Amino acid sequence: MRSVERMIQTSFDIISIGYELLDGRVLNTNAKWLAEQISSLGGKVCRIVVVGDQVEEISSVIRDSFRRKIDWVITTGGLGPTYDDITLQGVAKAANRKLVLNRRALEMIKKKYLELFEKGLIDSPELTPHRIKMAMLPRGAEPLENEVGSAPGVLLKSGKTRIVCLPGVPSELENIFTKRVKPLLEKSMKKICTADRWLLIIGVPESTLAPKIDEVKTKFPQVYVKSHPKREEEKSIINLYMRALAKTPSKCHKTLNDVEKIIIRLVEELGGTISRPEGAPT
Amino acid sequence: MRSVERMIQTSFDIISIGYELLDGRVLNTNAKWLAEQISSLGGKVCRIVVVGDQVEEISSVIRDSFRRKIDWVITTGGLGPTYDDITLQGVAKAANRKLVLNRRALEMIKKKYLELFEKGLIDSPELTPHRIKMAMLPRGAEPLENEVGSAPGVLLKSGKTRIVCLPGVPSELENIFTKRVKPLLEKSMKKICTADRWLLIIGVPESTLAPKIDEVKTKFPQVYVKSHPKREEEKSIINLYMRALAKTPSKCHKTLNDVEKIIIRLVEELGGTISRPEGAPT
Repeated sequence: MRSVERMIQTSFDIISIGYELLDGRVLNTNAKWLAEQISSLGGKVCRIVVVGDQVEEISSVIRDSFRRKIDWVITTGGLGPTYDDITLQGVAKAANRKLVLNRRALEMIKKKYLELFEKGLIDSPELTPHRIKMAMLPRGAEPLENEVGSAPGVLLKSGKTRIVCLPGVPSELENIFTKRVKPLLEKSMKKICTADRWLLIIGVPESTLAPKIDEVKTKFPQVYVKSHPKREEEKSIINLYMRALAKTPSKCHKTLNDVEKIIIRLVEELGGTISRPEGAPT
Repeated sequence: MRSVERMIQTSFDIISIGYELLDGRVLNTNAKWLAEQISSLGGKVCRIVVVGDQVEEISSVIRDSFRRKIDWVITTGGLGPTYDDITLQGVAKAANRKLVLNRRALEMIKKKYLELFEKGLIDSPELTPHRIKMAMLPRGAEPLENEVGSAPGVLLKSGKTRIVCLPGVPSELENIFTKRVKPLLEKSMKKICTADRWLLIIGVPESTLAPKIDEVKTKFPQVYVKSHPKREEEKSIINLYMRALAKTPSKCHKTLNDVEKIIIRLVEELGGTISRPEGAPT
């Protein structure tokens, strides 16, 4: 089934960068937020990988995404002005690019520090080396304006993969994703519709139902089916979740109707009863 | 520096398994909890990887941990009785083992269901196929008793890597880790001490300090140094964090003293002032 999903859905890897995520100091809420956003747009997150602030590690996992022909790689963290913010070095290495001064990024950063200076928040709007560092992007990359903080996001195409680099500060990440990345995704992503349905199955043990469900899954690879035994010990109540993927809503519903009919017949043959609850079960 | 850390510290990968983590429905608190535990024991988490419930994906990331010579791989999720709980299939594939009925695991499961039956919580203590499924472990594996739920954890040695499989339910994961895994780690992990120190540096811009710090890092690979500019715009206040790794506490402190001396001299040469605050800065 997964290969069919991959054919239908645009694929994503999320790569979170920072030792603070690996030693348990920080909970990776950025990855969850991005995964939710991507799923709600109809995309499929294939992997989430957390690595430390190390060029080799970053380039190695990005290259692995290239090998797996992932459509979009989204990195979080490591874009700031300090010397251990090295995400773009890792990206440049993975994509075999040099880091070069990006004029548009520099303009964004210049404008940002001028604003901060005019508001009296900083002593000088001078473009110090560590401020300029944030405008050193892999050759061919495009800066993505950051309305909240100083480091711009970065967009780079490498082969068939698009790489988006976002800052680790949640408000900055969310700002750039919502304002700059989401519109791009909506334009470029494969159009995909999904529809969900739940069935309540009573009186058939999951172990009996499982092989039958496997047959249905083989027959309908575009449908995701998952059984949730309500209490595994009582063995007789199963919430069955189905999600269909297709190019139009009507195709989704037609497929779910077809699958539902087959499952109703199966359950009745096995001596169980079946109903379709309103919405998701609690 | 990282390679030295790897030489000193026992290395870990955490592999979290489940589509619910990839579509943003569930926040990966298990990985954070494990990372905290491992760090506090002196271990080093190298990567956290989230993959879907798919045998190929699971075996592929575990093999990647083998290639990177990771000491311990800890998986979470996918040990339950349902047909999409396929973690052990993925582990077996990665380690080139067959899944076989493990007598000790079966005894644990039998005892568990008998207890539930005697308490009147289930209709029958019968070992149904999906209950027996939880006792099908990779050949050579050892079950780890689960005092909270029904699926035992699993320990398997493959080459120099030890693989630990834990259930995804946090209370079960925490129970097995604390009672069964932690004692093993405490016995087998390389003995390592750490000591932390903070320095407050005033009047030296981070961009000036950074290359000097890089030199110190090269000279003392067993020391982790990270600068936290207090307000990047004011460019003059830096909290410098140092962590030393060594086999004894006295070695840690000696190293930190040596590094501190060098940094004090550097800062004074650059016209700044330095102090050692009590504890971590706020």
